[in-house]
Amino acid sequence: MQVDRLIVVGTGLMGGSLAAAAKRSGCAQIVIGVDPDRSREAQSLGLIDGAFQNLSELVDHLPPREGAQRLLVLATPVSRYASLVPAISALWEDLDPTLVTEMGSTKHALIEALSGLPDTPQASAMKLRFVPSHPLAGAETSGPQAAIETLFEGARILVSPLAESLPEAVANVESFWMSLGGIPTPLPLEDHDALLAVVSHLPHLISYALAGTIAQGPLGQAALSLHGGGLRDTTRIAGSSAELWADILLDNREELLALMPQWQITLGGMLRALESCDRALLVDALEPAATWRRQIV
Amino acid sequence: MQVDRLIVVGTGLMGGSLAAAAKRSGCAQIVIGVDPDRSREAQSLGLIDGAFQNLSELVDHLPPREGAQRLLVLATPVSRYASLVPAISALWEDLDPTLVTEMGSTKHALIEALSGLPDTPQASAMKLRFVPSHPLAGAETSGPQAAIETLFEGARILVSPLAESLPEAVANVESFWMSLGGIPTPLPLEDHDALLAVVSHLPHLISYALAGTIAQGPLGQAALSLHGGGLRDTTRIAGSSAELWADILLDNREELLALMPQWQITLGGMLRALESCDRALLVDALEPAATWRRQIV
Repeated sequence: MQVDRLIVVGTGLMGGSLAAAAKRSGCAQIVIGVDPDRSREAQSLGLIDGAFQNLSELVDHLPPREGAQRLLVLATPVSRYASLVPAISALWEDLDPTLVTEMGSTKHALIEALSGLPDTPQASAMKLRFVPSHPLAGAETSGPQAAIETLFEGARILVSPLAESLPEAVANVESFWMSLGGIPTPLPLEDHDALLAVVSHLPHLISYALAGTIAQGPLGQAALSLHGGGLRDTTRIAGSSAELWADILLDNREELLALMPQWQITLGGMLRALESCDRALLVDALEPAATWRRQIV
Repeated sequence: MQVDRLIVVGTGLMGGSLAAAAKRSGCAQIVIGVDPDRSREAQSLGLIDGAFQNLSELVDHLPPREGAQRLLVLATPVSRYASLVPAISALWEDLDPTLVTEMGSTKHALIEALSGLPDTPQASAMKLRFVPSHPLAGAETSGPQAAIETLFEGARILVSPLAESLPEAVANVESFWMSLGGIPTPLPLEDHDALLAVVSHLPHLISYALAGTIAQGPLGQAALSLHGGGLRDTTRIAGSSAELWADILLDNREELLALMPQWQITLGGMLRALESCDRALLVDALEPAATWRRQIV
């Protein structure tokens, strides 16, 4: 999809990467960043063409759309949705986007923010053109200086329309992500957070626990240099921002905590086999994991 | 180091990779494989020049050394050491190696096998030229067909001499690994297994538990395709052979189980913060892991 103006709200790692990818692919003519803290930095890095502190400042400088395609993307932490979603609805005529999406790693803050909107024509108009999505791509780094212009190439993009989203808007969001090399995959909005708890939030929690166990043990220092690819890969995402991930894990804590009984059963079975020195039991405990993992290429 | 004849006992992934790396680097003239099950396959893959079923068959065909360098490397599971080490000692004059090393992922089976040897001139001669080592490199695959000729490039090689090892033999083992691109690092033999529990065996156990939890949950099938790099990296080593890793984990079970109290404290702290929705506590729980991991480049 060709976009005349791409507005990225939040210009950290994800928003910055989106801006860079859109410029690189040539699918966006002008990329505008909105971020109180980091839009100037994103602009000086050449990720965006224009920088604004907030949506009010943006609309003061936004020319009339006049038939052009204008895509608005939320790339902030989901904790900002409670104020951002009402602000977009309130400024709907001024922002005048043809399409809105967001990249939140959980969706219930979005669902809450949308359901809390007053029943206005602006809110209804917004929901028609709002299609939540979520690229399953990221990095353990953060900030616009860490932006990766190829971040979405080959990445799965979960597309989770609202009940109100127009089919045309869904098709356009999918087309936009495909322009950046992503692979759009539909996922019902209400299934999103449970899936993410499994494929992202539990792996992060466990990776943090593994790195933390080593860091706080007597061999933490030695392990920094004396290790192989196994340690490096299993702990890579534990290098991610603790502040950012505390928010993500807390935001999806119910779905995440609901996985812990199965975790205890699985690890517990392995530990019992180790304690009782029962090789057959240990092989049986490890085998489902190995069989499952080998199906991922 | 230039080796006229490299004898690799055990021609699976590790032994096969060693053979391939030695041929590639040109540091070994002739590579001989000894393996009852897999030496023929390794030979047909071009990894080795000669294939024997066992050490007795090898010595029947081995020409006199006549001043040449002859390196013997054990690349079998450590469970075979109880019979292999006495066999090498008994065949010492016939094998006549200038240097012996092994690649075991734990060392206590080796220590036991060595200390159980009768006090013979052959056993004493062997210990002078025996220098245990351990490349911190591997893959989740197995068998000679999975051999990787660049496996040791840039890899740390733990070098853990016996009390009896000659300094010249230690230097030669280090030089051999450097010919294959490895980075030799000394580690006292008695510290080896505790370090490996931390940097390899705990990461494998936790990766198996993570993959197993997902595999056995209701979203296991969906997670196979809908995921990003975080899941892929944290579970990669869970695709390793369950049979092989059951042996390794059991072999080092005491050191591994000794890490579980710290594991419970670390994960437990994170879970308590999640349960009580305490953001500051969760950031404090995640931060040591992130700080530690960022020191690995």
